[in-house]
Amino acid sequence: MSQEFKLIDQYFLPLSRFLLPDDIGIGDDGAVLTPPENHQLVVVTDTLVEGVHFPVDTLPKDIACKAVAVNLSDLAAMGAKPGFISLALTLPENKQAWLESFAFGLSEICSKYHIPLIGGDTTKGPLTITVTAHGWVEKGKALLRSGAEVGDMIAVSGVIGDAGLGLKFALNQLDESEQACLSESEIQSCLEALNRPNPQIELGRLLQNTASSAIDISDGLLADLSHILEQSNKQLDLQASSQSCSQAQAQVQIGAELYLEDLPISVAMNKWLNQKNEWALPLSAGDDYELCFTLKPEKWAALNLAAQKQGLRVSCVGKIVDSAGIKVKQNQASNKSVQELNHLGHFGYQHF
Amino acid sequence: MSQEFKLIDQYFLPLSRFLLPDDIGIGDDGAVLTPPENHQLVVVTDTLVEGVHFPVDTLPKDIACKAVAVNLSDLAAMGAKPGFISLALTLPENKQAWLESFAFGLSEICSKYHIPLIGGDTTKGPLTITVTAHGWVEKGKALLRSGAEVGDMIAVSGVIGDAGLGLKFALNQLDESEQACLSESEIQSCLEALNRPNPQIELGRLLQNTASSAIDISDGLLADLSHILEQSNKQLDLQASSQSCSQAQAQVQIGAELYLEDLPISVAMNKWLNQKNEWALPLSAGDDYELCFTLKPEKWAALNLAAQKQGLRVSCVGKIVDSAGIKVKQNQASNKSVQELNHLGHFGYQHF
Repeated sequence: MSQEFKLIDQYFLPLSRFLLPDDIGIGDDGAVLTPPENHQLVVVTDTLVEGVHFPVDTLPKDIACKAVAVNLSDLAAMGAKPGFISLALTLPENKQAWLESFAFGLSEICSKYHIPLIGGDTTKGPLTITVTAHGWVEKGKALLRSGAEVGDMIAVSGVIGDAGLGLKFALNQLDESEQACLSESEIQSCLEALNRPNPQIELGRLLQNTASSAIDISDGLLADLSHILEQSNKQLDLQASSQSCSQAQAQVQIGAELYLEDLPISVAMNKWLNQKNEWALPLSAGDDYELCFTLKPEKWAALNLAAQKQGLRVSCVGKIVDSAGIKVKQNQASNKSVQELNHLGHFGYQHF
Repeated sequence: MSQEFKLIDQYFLPLSRFLLPDDIGIGDDGAVLTPPENHQLVVVTDTLVEGVHFPVDTLPKDIACKAVAVNLSDLAAMGAKPGFISLALTLPENKQAWLESFAFGLSEICSKYHIPLIGGDTTKGPLTITVTAHGWVEKGKALLRSGAEVGDMIAVSGVIGDAGLGLKFALNQLDESEQACLSESEIQSCLEALNRPNPQIELGRLLQNTASSAIDISDGLLADLSHILEQSNKQLDLQASSQSCSQAQAQVQIGAELYLEDLPISVAMNKWLNQKNEWALPLSAGDDYELCFTLKPEKWAALNLAAQKQGLRVSCVGKIVDSAGIKVKQNQASNKSVQELNHLGHFGYQHF
């Protein structure tokens, strides 16, 4: 057995320890998993490419954690319970120290969510990590992007923008005055947001019977909210055409209003905004892996309480309105158009 | 919507057409699939990297077909019925012609097996294609590598070695005399074997109640047969230890005998072997995506008949014996050791 095979056996095989007794993981042509009764399978895939999705000198254990976390975040947005993951790892060379650290990070996050690594593929090439994560959701209970309706509140979990600020620091893009306004621990906290996103699994489960739509914020609040609007409008069109509505009725499009002063931001982001006043960072930098969701206003109080009990933060940031597009409002006076603010900061292609 | 997003919508969205009515594919954070009753899910993942798993000038439609076929081949080896696939595509640039051809190939193979593309991720970076394929198998009926026993026949589907010969041609590694001995159509057929492997789904289904073990031949017959031996020996050790056998009994290891003259090879490979007499090509070049399996001798006749009825070729190439390792025999006289022949021709890392 070659050295590479031994390393993989040594580092990846132990990650199948959370496999259920009747299931089969690493070691055959494929893994065999038993679906829980009355559940549907949720499948998500995300790829991280070195230099594109994370800076070149990112710690391997952070890369591993992030590669899994961004997928779990998609499961969270569907309201699914994480089940298991597979890993396709393309590596330029086989360095033991690198693999050790990568496997350590993978083990950390697999342990946290009790999910086994069920198999995968390691290949030689430029560093690329694709994780496919699988979860389970009660039949018909998956949270979708497509249920938002006029009058719904728009809410966001946690705080947004810190990962974008962390990336600016990691890429040495903060000037002296920007850096001076942030404490060491604030910078560390932004780097933590960048490298160790925290998938909102518990919140996704809470939202299952509460939210009318949900998405995870990977491309930035504006871009991801626009996906909710797009899918919800498609759904409304479908409903309209199935009810044989007139053309005029079918063309009603929903949109959103966002209130800048209600956006949940950290102390660090607040300090930075005082220096730069560039709202594009919290609105469009992305990599937040918080949830953006919509819900009927009468459901807010109970959700907020349930979230607080679990130590989760949710903030109302706007509402769904009956005119297309996203209007971002400040101090309920200014009314910037989305074009001014929407500098897409995300650097991937499309996640579909 | 950017040009890239439009292209992806245009080319990938139509590939969800084989989705079952209640399931959800491309367009949300994840796909939602309903498991058939009394079935287990089989998950396999394989990555193809440009210049590592396929030559740089391979047609995009061939890359797409191969990326899916190698995964379906793993499903075949598990005896599973293909269900659906997800795609992680990393592209250096966004060329319409490239994507068109790639999507065409994807559509060809998805249509052939009636499987939907349920989602994925497209990212910017060096050309890398990861497909995760999902299939369904009746509960407890998955074909494993671990059931081979002394006295079992070893069999192989189709012919082996043609993809390896095709790769030599594609990489201009055939000398004049080698090339002169092959006709144009024989070379085309070897290239077809390289670029358009034919996953043995129907045979895998036939083997479900017949074979004692199975694997698909991706790394070459010798390497893949050794995986069967390894997993079967582990299983025998487990059984022995659970039955509290003595140490001596637990250490009995199974091995294999292979007969060179029984290997199923094409006319082209036969001509080439007459020139070079290098059995490493059919035994170890890999990329065959045929099945290697073991079965009780009394089951052979019925299987052979059933396979013939479906136009499938199966050949008996050896037997499982009670001494460890693989012995390759020629004309039942010569007895080359596996070390002489086993030049691993596969150029990936490990598939786990």
